[in-house]
Order: sequence, then structure tokens, then C-alpha cells
Amino acid sequence: MNTFGQALRISTFGESHGLGVGCVIDGFPAGIVIDTALLAAQMQRRKGGQTPYATPRKEEDKVEILSGVFDGKSTGAPIALFIPNTNTKSKDYETIKDIFRPGHADFTYHEKYGARDYRGGGRSSARESAVRVASGAFAKMLLQELGITCESGILHIGTHKGENIDFAYAKTSEIFALDKAVESAQKHAILEARKNGDSIGGCALVRAFSPNGALKGLGQPLYYKLSGAIGAMMMGLNGVKALEIGDGIESSTRLGSQNNDNMDSSGFTSNHCGGILGGIGTGEEIRIKIYFKPTPSIFLPQQTIDTSKQPKNLSLKGRHDPCIAVRGSVVCESMLALILADMALLHTHTRIDSIKDFYNAP
Amino acid sequence: MNTFGQALRISTFGESHGLGVGCVIDGFPAGIVIDTALLAAQMQRRKGGQTPYATPRKEEDKVEILSGVFDGKSTGAPIALFIPNTNTKSKDYETIKDIFRPGHADFTYHEKYGARDYRGGGRSSARESAVRVASGAFAKMLLQELGITCESGILHIGTHKGENIDFAYAKTSEIFALDKAVESAQKHAILEARKNGDSIGGCALVRAFSPNGALKGLGQPLYYKLSGAIGAMMMGLNGVKALEIGDGIESSTRLGSQNNDNMDSSGFTSNHCGGILGGIGTGEEIRIKIYFKPTPSIFLPQQTIDTSKQPKNLSLKGRHDPCIAVRGSVVCESMLALILADMALLHTHTRIDSIKDFYNAP
Amino acid sequence: MNTFGQALRISTFGESHGLGVGCVIDGFPAGIVIDTALLAAQMQRRKGGQTPYATPRKEEDKVEILSGVFDGKSTGAPIALFIPNTNTKSKDYETIKDIFRPGHADFTYHEKYGARDYRGGGRSSARESAVRVASGAFAKMLLQELGITCESGILHIGTHKGENIDFAYAKTSEIFALDKAVESAQKHAILEARKNGDSIGGCALVRAFSPNGALKGLGQPLYYKLSGAIGAMMMGLNGVKALEIGDGIESSTRLGSQNNDNMDSSGFTSNHCGGILGGIGTGEEIRIKIYFKPTPSIFLPQQTIDTSKQPKNLSLKGRHDPCIAVRGSVVCESMLALILADMALLHTHTRIDSIKDFYNAP
Amino acid sequence: MNTFGQALRISTFGESHGLGVGCVIDGFPAGIVIDTALLAAQMQRRKGGQTPYATPRKEEDKVEILSGVFDGKSTGAPIALFIPNTNTKSKDYETIKDIFRPGHADFTYHEKYGARDYRGGGRSSARESAVRVASGAFAKMLLQELGITCESGILHIGTHKGENIDFAYAKTSEIFALDKAVESAQKHAILEARKNGDSIGGCALVRAFSPNGALKGLGQPLYYKLSGAIGAMMMGLNGVKALEIGDGIESSTRLGSQNNDNMDSSGFTSNHCGGILGGIGTGEEIRIKIYFKPTPSIFLPQQTIDTSKQPKNLSLKGRHDPCIAVRGSVVCESMLALILADMALLHTHTRIDSIKDFYNAP
Repeated sequence: MNTFGQALRISTFGESHGLGVGCVIDGFPAGIVIDTALLAAQMQRRKGGQTPYATPRKEEDKVEILSGVFDGKSTGAPIALFIPNTNTKSKDYETIKDIFRPGHADFTYHEKYGARDYRGGGRSSARESAVRVASGAFAKMLLQELGITCESGILHIGTHKGENIDFAYAKTSEIFALDKAVESAQKHAILEARKNGDSIGGCALVRAFSPNGALKGLGQPLYYKLSGAIGAMMMGLNGVKALEIGDGIESSTRLGSQNNDNMDSSGFTSNHCGGILGGIGTGEEIRIKIYFKPTPSIFLPQQTIDTSKQPKNLSLKGRHDPCIAVRGSVVCESMLALILADMALLHTHTRIDSIKDFYNAP
Repeated sequence: MNTFGQALRISTFGESHGLGVGCVIDGFPAGIVIDTALLAAQMQRRKGGQTPYATPRKEEDKVEILSGVFDGKSTGAPIALFIPNTNTKSKDYETIKDIFRPGHADFTYHEKYGARDYRGGGRSSARESAVRVASGAFAKMLLQELGITCESGILHIGTHKGENIDFAYAKTSEIFALDKAVESAQKHAILEARKNGDSIGGCALVRAFSPNGALKGLGQPLYYKLSGAIGAMMMGLNGVKALEIGDGIESSTRLGSQNNDNMDSSGFTSNHCGGILGGIGTGEEIRIKIYFKPTPSIFLPQQTIDTSKQPKNLSLKGRHDPCIAVRGSVVCESMLALILADMALLHTHTRIDSIKDFYNAP
Repeated sequence: MNTFGQALRISTFGESHGLGVGCVIDGFPAGIVIDTALLAAQMQRRKGGQTPYATPRKEEDKVEILSGVFDGKSTGAPIALFIPNTNTKSKDYETIKDIFRPGHADFTYHEKYGARDYRGGGRSSARESAVRVASGAFAKMLLQELGITCESGILHIGTHKGENIDFAYAKTSEIFALDKAVESAQKHAILEARKNGDSIGGCALVRAFSPNGALKGLGQPLYYKLSGAIGAMMMGLNGVKALEIGDGIESSTRLGSQNNDNMDSSGFTSNHCGGILGGIGTGEEIRIKIYFKPTPSIFLPQQTIDTSKQPKNLSLKGRHDPCIAVRGSVVCESMLALILADMALLHTHTRIDSIKDFYNAP
Repeated sequence: MNTFGQALRISTFGESHGLGVGCVIDGFPAGIVIDTALLAAQMQRRKGGQTPYATPRKEEDKVEILSGVFDGKSTGAPIALFIPNTNTKSKDYETIKDIFRPGHADFTYHEKYGARDYRGGGRSSARESAVRVASGAFAKMLLQELGITCESGILHIGTHKGENIDFAYAKTSEIFALDKAVESAQKHAILEARKNGDSIGGCALVRAFSPNGALKGLGQPLYYKLSGAIGAMMMGLNGVKALEIGDGIESSTRLGSQNNDNMDSSGFTSNHCGGILGGIGTGEEIRIKIYFKPTPSIFLPQQTIDTSKQPKNLSLKGRHDPCIAVRGSVVCESMLALILADMALLHTHTRIDSIKDFYNAP
């Protein structure tokens, strides 16, 4: 169950303190020029060790392409990626190998599997998200060919919420802040949490758009809708506890006459639905909010138990993000790219007329 | 893509104004006594035509079991269900067959498929959810054997929000209200919307619990986690625009020291995470909020276009729920049952020791 | 596990003596005119009760289309089919409900599921193949649009083997004989077996071809190759014990210089490989032989045991095909159609250039 | 489509002359001791460069375990394997990069993907089978725990057919010959073909057995039967053109009274069906014959064309197996192990009684 997608399938593997993390990308179409600069740029955005707002763990995050590329292009064969772990300090974890860290998957993995790789969370570590970003970069190479763009940024940190959204500004911000006006308050909140040995929650905003209408029709009713796939991927990400599409919760407090998106001859006159109706892309901007809990790893003393159910006072060591939402936003953007790339492939065989065109083409 | 689940797989079919809706339930274990009273009771809860708070369309919703049951028990063969449509008024839709109803899937289905069954929304109709409830009842028969219970109710209607949650009370309420204190305000809001030819949004709360710890360990990391499967199913349901697990958005505004669930020798001392850590059940109550937009079908005049992109003034006719959240809550409960049943089956082959036990059993 | 296919997915249900058999066809493209005459003709070819060479059980085999078709065309929604059982004589099975019939699935179903629907084999009955033919007819409607044809016939019955293959003749033969010269010997062998209360084995030959090259490139390496999918479907059919593609076993006795198919500027100069190289269609005729064991239901006395492991002398009653290969050939043809239709859909998103063409089309 | 299996899923990647080949094994149960000696032994059996009967290409075939193992045991996380290519001579292929080798996948990959990695067959190379053997060794570790054994050997080479089967002897033979009496004739036939720049076909025999009845009940009707899965895997392997289960083709020439396997109180009195009835294991020995065509790579001159459809006289260079059946037999054995391991996992949730036992276990 370590696979996502239908036509474009990603199977990931690897642990936080093992040899590395990686994946197999299956179904990637042949003939796409592999844009290694794009790949490196995306990895750079997710990387820790660069600012006080992210984990001090500094991984090179160099992506090795093990297969599926020849003469600089995809061949249609599976593309395997491997990202070696180079900066593991497993000793940090020796002392807590029998202790369940609060808010972590330690207890549940122990219950499920009977034992666990305790070093840095093992398989449950956010380290795996490096692979989501790497494979997401490949999805972006595909979407680029179709004229689809995915972007992201930070909407709120703790209770500091951005109002005036600027995706271009987010690209320049150390915390990917979407609203310059609240950026320094947001940064301050992260540093304050960090200084106190604590952590803080936040919210990412992700969008996708296509000037040439390529989002129109994407989504596979009824159990692989665009909304359903977004729900699967975003809610399945470490630390995510809530999700909104379009106006989200706000919509649930409205009247129908307030919430429906009307149309005129030039198209939709509003976009409360966030670019998705009936689980299918309307062609309008897709807009999603993803809510992250605070990093469970904090340095303040906590009450917990060990594998023998004995109470323990725990004071964690190690290197952790004070706010997982920041780097998490890049992961969410990457996952939306993966979803849209998959949907774009599936959509090619929806109607017999275009299938016939394909088989009659010279 | 009309299939959900891995070990327990549901494939649905049917349209609002066709012969009926149905499904194939594959992977249902052999030997389960088919509880037809439970099935009928669940169908009854979802049924319209019973109160002023739901659609006046009155369907008998009798579930025909076409296969997979012999001598009152499941055989291990696929169970096919069919629910005939008995009360269709397709004429209501003749006049709008070329017009895109705002907030509906009309436009996107037309764009995707090139044509559509316009009668009552065709495949995109909430009529399909009858099948989710029917198959969910089978999931409940399975969960019953393992000691797992799923329940649901209404948390808010419009801006009227319940505070004191009482699942037992919800079972007696015509709108499944969880808080008796706000029930009449909630009912009034629905009737008001209805009287005005309008509709209103709302929020359902769903929970699952097991006194004997059967939820512990459920979930298949990393891409079929409990949280991911919940995201897929709930966000893929008609009209759902947001989702929270546990404390949800609230968690994203907190510090880690506030949000982590500590443990003592008797277990967890809080349940902010909603019963799921690392995508796996902790054994605590699973708690989910699902936010529904207002029904897109309203009787007030709306601006839209037809398939030739010509502007149209639309005044809908037909029979519609003034608030889809109400009956939607039963669907969400059913879908959680389906997810948990699937996860319960998958979990049986997690560890070699229990697999060996199985093969060595007499 | 009652589903076959990737892009075009068929999920079947139903038992021999239940209400009927049926299926859900998911992924069938929108806009295909439903050719009910073709459907009826294929059902007619598989039907029993028409000649002394097939079972006397006479089923009407009328296919009800429950969903997915509107105004005579497919809508892209799942197409559900149901074929009611109208001629069941379940009493024939009362006396053997605790006895394992030799050569049947009685013992293995009992071991697997703990109990079984003993009436006519229940789920394990060849009755399910009616659904394979019905869904295969839909696949044929799709293939017709792309210029692909599937045909079949009988190659040998017992040791009577056809040499001069004539697919046109097979269409006129009561036993679908491919070689007129041996047809009467084959018929005689069947009647002889029948007269003696026995049954007889046989071999079907199936082919697919496309004048416009549409078979070229079909197949999804490495684990959903054309050859692998054929292996899965044909070997999974009741009574099939062997399979050859192209020259099959003969190839395994040759030298490479004898077996390779050379090419000149007009294409391949031979077709030992049966139209498949590396698991992908070469564009040449696909040619498969499927070997059926004799019907396990015979009227001669047999030694067996009951569910208490007590020895029993069994003399079967009921209505059975004296040679399952005959009607089986139509099923094999239908399954090849299903495979090719699935592969044709999957192939549409193999290369980025054609995917771009699709998204840039007006 | 580079994935096989349902509960135990193998996704493979890699090319003949790329960095290496590898796979991700998903669903491998937690707690299995990783038997690296068994892994090495299986790799050794498949390895070339050791006898005159196999390719002179000598690969170290050292399997790197990238993830999923901790403290010598499986953790339940995906196990990724990588086998670096160390002995590639890609220059051998420069001269034929635009030429389609007869009997190879060159033409079909070119047609499908528009371009191909021509070095040693790229993705279509039998080099990938190293991964099947490696992952098969993991399946064997699992089967060992359940008491299931898989074995294999060579039945015929060209027209030299073994009669007296001895699986123990095969383990000692350089060509895995099952019949000592014909071994030298078989070896001679291979050397003769090799000396002439030619190649030769052959047939492998594979069996599985379990003294404690663990094969009984394995198989998931109707579309993932044991027979269907065997068909999928074996027919999907490079060079395989035919397959028989049990008595295979012989059965198709018999009468039912000759072919049925009767039972007495001690079980089956014959095993014509090869251990599978209705697609489910009977508990008797599973017996399969797999027929390989001769290696398409021969050094004799051949007629072919290039990518511009110009005729070419081709005289291949490179290092090739004179008979792929020999090493292929080890691959088939490995694949049967993978299938049985998958089926063994799936079977754990067939019946409600054993599922309840699992959830009530201490």
C-alpha cells in the first residue's frame, strides 16, 4: 500500500535513518525531456538546514535516477529515484527506542507491526516526503507540456493568518509566506516556539491553473474524483489534520443562492467551488487549503509510556522542524502535481472520438 | 474508477433516473449472517420523503440482493445489490437538458464526456449514495463481529452549531441533530431556506469506537492510511468541501505542547488526534467532521448558460433536499464503516506470527 | 478479486442457480453506439439448449442493461449488465450437496470458504461465462471502432485435430469446427462421449487481426504484457489446462534460426511468434490455442467422498455440456476482445507527443 | 504496469545496460528473519558466466537491500532491492541501434514508445529476471514459515525430453536437468547450437508442495485464481510461448472418465489437475510446465530492417544464453513462489471465523 495513482503510479520506499529514500514512477510517458534543473530546484525548496525556520538536519538531497531515462528523455520504462541519507545521527534515538513519543506514530507502528525502526521515526518519518517532491517534479515536467502550473505558499502560522495572497512573493520568502504583511509575525511565531523548545502549526495554500483550459474535464468519477484524490493524498500526509477545497467550511455555513457559481457567456462569474464540480475540473483555478498540526517532536518535557506500559518522562533530543507546514507546503504542491498528471493521462481515453483520432493518426 | 477499497472492494453503478442504482461488493468474507433488518434500518435513515427536512422524492429503496448470499450467509462470492428507481419524474428535466445548472456537475460532465444523462443529474446524482449506505450496512455486519461501531449526526446547519454532542439523541432527531439545544434553530434554518426556494449548508460529525481495541493498528501506510482513505471517501462525496480529523483546523493554530496527546499507563490522556497517529488507529475514538455545501438545486432564479454558451435565466423545478448535510451524515457514517471493514481485513496479514497461527490452526 | 482489466474493468457476480449473473463494465468510453444486435448474436453463439453438442439447459440469456447507456450511446458511466437465470433445476443438486464431485471445484470451495452454494456449482459454474461473452460484446463494439476483429473456432476434439483452418466455416458449424474435413469425426466423438455418459476434451483457436495496424504497440510491459494478460484470462477460465501463443510448444523444440521471424521492407516474413514480441503486438495476427479438459460432470459412476470424508459412489444427474471446449471457444474470443480493448485504451497515454495532441485538439 | 501481485506487490525497474535493476516489495509481513544465504543461493543459481550452457556475461548480482529491514528482520515497510549492473559492454550495441533484431522486442518497443534504449534490449532484456529471482527469494522466506516449497528443473531441450523426473538431481546439474538419463544429450544439443552460432528452445517443470496442507484453499476466484495468476506470470516472462498445468494438453484429448481425479478417504487418488481445481489449490502438488522459445539472439546472419524500413543483413555480436530455458527455470520457480506468497496472504481474510480469531487473539 505504498503506491499512489492509477495511470501514473508512484511506489515509495525508505526510512529516515536507513540508506535512503526512493521511489518507482510507473506510467511516465515516453519522450519527455528530463528537466534536471527543475528537479534540483524543487528539492532545494523542500530541503532543511538552510534557515532557522526548518530542521537543522542538512541533507544533500541529491536525486539519483536509476532507470527509465535514456539520452535525456523518458523511455516509457519505470523511472526509479534514490535519495541517499547522508546526515543521520541515529545515536540520538538509542535512548528512546522503547519509548513512545507523544504525537508520533511510535505507538501505532509498534501496535501494528510488533516492532519498529525507531531511528528518526523510520518509515513514518517526514523524510519520505523528499520522494514526493522528487516524483512531483517529474509530474511537473509532464504538466508543463500541457500548460498546467502548480504553486503553493503559507497562509497561516499559528493564529497569524495571511489575507492578501501573492504566490510570486511566496517564492521569495524563507517561509513561503503568501502575505508579506504578516510574514514577520509568522516568522516570529516560529522562532518563539523554537526558542521555547516547542513547535507550532500552520496552513498551506496550493493552487493549480492552466491558461489553455487543460484542467477542464480532469477527474474520474465516482471514486477517483479530483476532490477524492486530493483528499486521499493531502489527508494522508504526515501531520495534516484538515483540508478545504475552494471556500471549504465557509460554504457549509451559506445558503445555496450565496454559494453557487453562476455562469455567463465568458464562463464562471465566481469560483467558490475551487475549480471542481462533481469531482471534475471546471477549468477555473483549483484552490486547496491544507492544515498541519504542530511538529510532534518538541524539547519540552512530556508524559508518556514505554513498550512495557511504564510511565516515562521524556525530553526529546534530535533535529526537528519547528513548523512542518513550511516545508510541507512544497510537498502539497508536489502531490497536487502528481494527482493532476495522473488525471491528465486517464482523461485521454474518456471518449471514443478522441480514441479513434489517436488510432487513425499517422 | 467506480470502485473503492482494496480487500473489500465496492463497485457502484446506476443513475438517478435510470432503472436503478447498485453495486458489487467483492471480498466480503464467507460465513457472515446477513442482517436484513440492519440493512433496512440504514436505508430507512437515508431515505427521503419522510420529513420536511429532506427531498419530497419518496423512493422505496428496497435493496435486492442479487448474489453472494446462500442460506442466509455470505459465501465469499461477490454480493451484488440493486435498488430500483421507482419514483422518477424525468419530465422535470426535459426543459433544462441543454442548460448547465449552477453548482452542479452538468458543465463538467458535459466537458468531460461530450454528452450527459441530464435526467436528475444522471450518474452525478446523490441518488448513488443509496448504494453507499447499502454496502455500508454490509460493512457494519462485518464490523459488528469485530466489536466496532460507527455513528453519526449533525453538528451545524448554516451558522447554528451544536456544542453538547449526544449521539444517542441524534438517533431520535428528524435531522439527526447531535445537540438538542440547537436542534430547533437548525430545523428552522432549513425550513426558512426551503420556504425561500433556497438551500443551506451544514456539517456532519462521524465517529467510530471499539471497546475491545479492534481499531488499534488499522490503516496501511503510507498511501492507504486510515486518514488518507477517509480523505478519499469523504472529499469524494457529492457536496463535501472540507474535512477535519480530530481537532482539525484548531490543531493547526496550536503549539506542539498543547496539541500532543500524552500517555500514561492507562493509555492516552487526550485525543486531539481523533484516534489516528501516523495514519494508523490508536484505539481511541475516531472522530471526523465533514462539511457540506448547500444543495446546488435551488428554486430562486439563477444566471447560467446552455451548451451553446448562450446566457440563460434558470428557475429550477424538481424535488430536492433543502440541506444535503442531513441525509449526507448517514452516508458518511456508512463510508467510514466501509473503510474500517477494508482496513480490518488488510490488517490480518501484517505480521508473520499471526499468519503462521492462521495456517497452523486446526 | 472478481475484477479484470486496468482501464476497462469488468467486475462480475452471480451464481449458476441464484437470481442470475451479471457484471459492471467500468471505463467504457463515452459516445459508443450500443449495438444490441451484436450483443444478442454473441449471446446466441454461446447459448446452450440448441444442439446435441451442448448442454440441454436452455437459458434465454437476455441481457438487461441496467445503467451507463443513454439515448442509445454509452455515457462514460459504468455499464451494469444482468442476465437472469430462468431455467434452474436446483433439486438436481439436493442429493449431492455434501458430496464432492470429481474434477469440480466442490472440494476446493468447501476448503476455502467453509461452505458453498452447491446448486450447479454456485459461483464456480461455467454459467458465469455468459457475462464474459456479454461484456466481450461491448469490447467488440469498441474494437470495431478501431478496426480490430476477434474470431474463434474449434481446432480439435479429443484426438481429432483440424489442419486446414477456416474461420468463416467455423461460423456456420454447430460445433464451430475450423476444419470441415474433420468436423463430422469431431461431432461423432462428442455424441459418442455423451451417449456413454462421458465427456470429452478439446482445443479452441482464437485470433485477432487489424487491417489498419491497430494491434501494433498494444501491451503494457512488463507485468501487463499482451501475453501476460492472455495468460491470466485464458488460464483462469474454467477447464482450461494449457495455452499456446503462436507456434507455442513447437517453438520450444526449435533452433533460433528456425524460430525467429525475419523482416523485409513489407514487414514480417513469418509469424511464429503469434503476433506478439516482448509482450507487445507486432501488428501481425494474434493467434492463441486454448486447451480444455473434458467436462468434469459425467454420468458414469465415480469414487469420491463427502464433507465428512466418507467414501461415496457418485452417479451424477443434471444437464451438462459433453464438451466444454465448444461453447468455451466463444468465451475465449470474448476474453481476447476484452484484453485488446483494455490495451487499446491504455496505449493512448504512452507518448507525450500524442498526449499533447489530445490536449491541444479543438 | 510494472507491478505484480495484490497483497504482496512487486514493482520492478531497470535496464540491461543502465545502472542496474531493482524492485520494491510491498506488503511483505513484519517479523520475518531475512535469510541472506537463501537470497545469495538463489541469485547464484540464476547467474550467468559459470558454465558453457549460459551467457558468458558475468554479473556479480549482489543484491543491495535499500529499505524495509531492521535488526535482521522485515519491518512491514516496503523492501527495496537494487542489483547494480557491473559488466555492461554497451559498445556491442552501437552498430545495431537502428536495426530491429529478429525475435526481439526491438520493433515493438520502437512502435510503442517512439524510441528505445537499444543497449542490450534495455527494459525488455532478460536481465530484469534477476529481480524476479531476488524478490522470489523473499517470497520463499515467507513460504518457508508456512511449510511450502517450490522447486524446478529442465524437462526438455530441443527434442530431448526427460521422462524420469528427479528434482533432487536437478539441483546438482549444470543445466538443472530433471532426468539424468537425457542430461548429456540435452547438454550436447545446447553446445551444438552454440557452436553453430545458433540457439535452442526448451521446457521447464516447476512444482510446489506442502506437507502440512498449506496449499489447500489458495487462489482468489474468479479473476485471481491460482491458475490465472500462474498464466499471467509465466506467459508474461520473456520467451515463454506455452504453458501447461497438470496434465495440460494431454487432458484436452481425454474423456472425462479418464481425466477426473477421484477421491477416497485418504484424499485424491490421482493428480491430473496439477493441484488446482476451480482455480484453487487442492493441497496436492502443483505442477506446471513452461515452454521457452530459443534465444532470439543468434550469431547466424539474418534478414531484417532498420528504423527507416530499409532491409539489413544482420550478424549479431554480444554475449547471450544459447538456451534461455535453463536459467529461465529458476525464474519460473521464483515467480511461483511470489504467486503462492501473495495467495497465502490474501487467504487470511476469507472467512469471518478466522478473522474473529485474529482480532480476539491476545
